[in-house]
Amino acid sequence: MRQLVVLVCLLAGCLAEKPHPAEKPHPCASPPLLSGALTVATQSEKLWTYTRYLYDAMGQRVRLFEMGTYENKSFTFDVLLLFREGAMYEISYHNHTCKKMPLKADFQPLAIPKDANLLGQAVLGSSSAPGAGLLVNTWMGDLPDKSGKYISTVTEFGCIPVSTSYQTKELGWVVISYFNNVIGLEDPALLNPPDFCADAETKSGEEPKDFHSLFL
Amino acid sequence: MRQLVVLVCLLAGCLAEKPHPAEKPHPCASPPLLSGALTVATQSEKLWTYTRYLYDAMGQRVRLFEMGTYENKSFTFDVLLLFREGAMYEISYHNHTCKKMPLKADFQPLAIPKDANLLGQAVLGSSSAPGAGLLVNTWMGDLPDKSGKYISTVTEFGCIPVSTSYQTKELGWVVISYFNNVIGLEDPALLNPPDFCADAETKSGEEPKDFHSLFL
Repeated sequence: MRQLVVLVCLLAGCLAEKPHPAEKPHPCASPPLLSGALTVATQSEKLWTYTRYLYDAMGQRVRLFEMGTYENKSFTFDVLLLFREGAMYEISYHNHTCKKMPLKADFQPLAIPKDANLLGQAVLGSSSAPGAGLLVNTWMGDLPDKSGKYISTVTEFGCIPVSTSYQTKELGWVVISYFNNVIGLEDPALLNPPDFCADAETKSGEEPKDFHSLFL
Repeated sequence: MRQLVVLVCLLAGCLAEKPHPAEKPHPCASPPLLSGALTVATQSEKLWTYTRYLYDAMGQRVRLFEMGTYENKSFTFDVLLLFREGAMYEISYHNHTCKKMPLKADFQPLAIPKDANLLGQAVLGSSSAPGAGLLVNTWMGDLPDKSGKYISTVTEFGCIPVSTSYQTKELGWVVISYFNNVIGLEDPALLNPPDFCADAETKSGEEPKDFHSLFL
C-alpha cells in the first residue's frame, strides 16, 4: 500500500504543473510545433494585419493566412514558406493558382536569443484569483542587423510568444501580438504545397529574409 | 452528517472557480480595489511612463507613482487623486512638499462601458498547457467625447485590465498596459494625503479630467 502511495505521488509529481522557478528566467525556445493567430500593428499605421499561422521549427515550415490593410487598402495574403527547400509559395485557393518564389533566408525559430537582456518578469492580469493571471518574461535586445531594438514577451511556462515589438525604418515600431496559440499543428497538411502548386514555376522577385521580414 | 456534506458542497460551490461561461462575454467592472503597475506608451513617442498605481473605486481614490520620459526628458510624478473631495495632491516625499489642486472631474471606474462592442475572446499564451494561457476579452468603442476610439482588453475571469489603447490628438494612440495587478490595496495608507500635506493650500491650475487624462 505504501508503495502505491509513493508511486501515485511520483506520478502526480511528474504530471503536476512545473513549480514556480526559484532561479531567474533564461532565454528559451518556443515549442517546435505551434498554431495560432497574430496581429501586426505598426506605429506608422501603414500596415495592419490579422494572421492565422502554422509553425513547424523541425521542418522549417511556416504558413501564414493574412488579412489586413496596407496604406488603407485591404489585402489578403496566403503564403507557405519552406525554408529548407528555399521556396516560398503564394497561394490562391480561389483561383487555384500558385506563385513559387525563391527563399534564400535562414529559418529563424521563435525563440528568445541567448544574448537578450531580461527587462522583467510580470503577471498579466492578476495573481489574486485562479485563471486570472499569466506569468510572462519580457526581453530586449538588438536586431540581428543592429538596425534597432526588439522587445519580446513570452510565457514563463511553455515559452509561448505573447508579443514582439521591433524597430523598422519604413514602418516605425512593429508590434506583433500572438494569441490563441496551441501547441501542435491544427492541420499539418497546410504545411505542404497544395496539389495545384505542383507545376508552379519559380519566379524571381522580392525575397523575404525571415518570418518577421514578411511584416516589414 | 448528510446535512454537513450538503453544506460543505454548497460552500465549495460558492468558493470554487467560476466555471467557463457558456454565454458570450458581457461588459464588466474591474474589482473595486486594485494595486499594480502599468506602462504608458504613445504612438508619437513623446510620452513613456512606468507607473505604480493604487485604485479604490469605493472611495473614488487613485494614487499614481510615475517615472517616465516626456519629449526625451525624464520625470517622476507622485500624485493622489481624491475625486469625492475634488482634490488632487502632487506629492514630493523628498522635499516634504505638497501641491493641492482642484479636481472637478467625475470619477471614472475601471470598467468596460455598457455600450462597448466585443471584438473577440482570445487566449494570450496557450491553452495547451496549465499555467501557459490567459482568457481575455477585447472590447472597442467610442471615447466619451467622441474624439476617437478605444480598445480595451480585460481578463474573462475577474475583469482585470490587461491593456487599453485610445486615440488622442496630441500623442496619437496611447497604449496603457497593466501588469502585476493584485486585488486589494497593497498599502491603503497611500490613498490618504501624507501628514505634510495637511496645510497645503489649494492652487488653481490645469485640472485633469479623469484617470486616463493624466496621460494625455
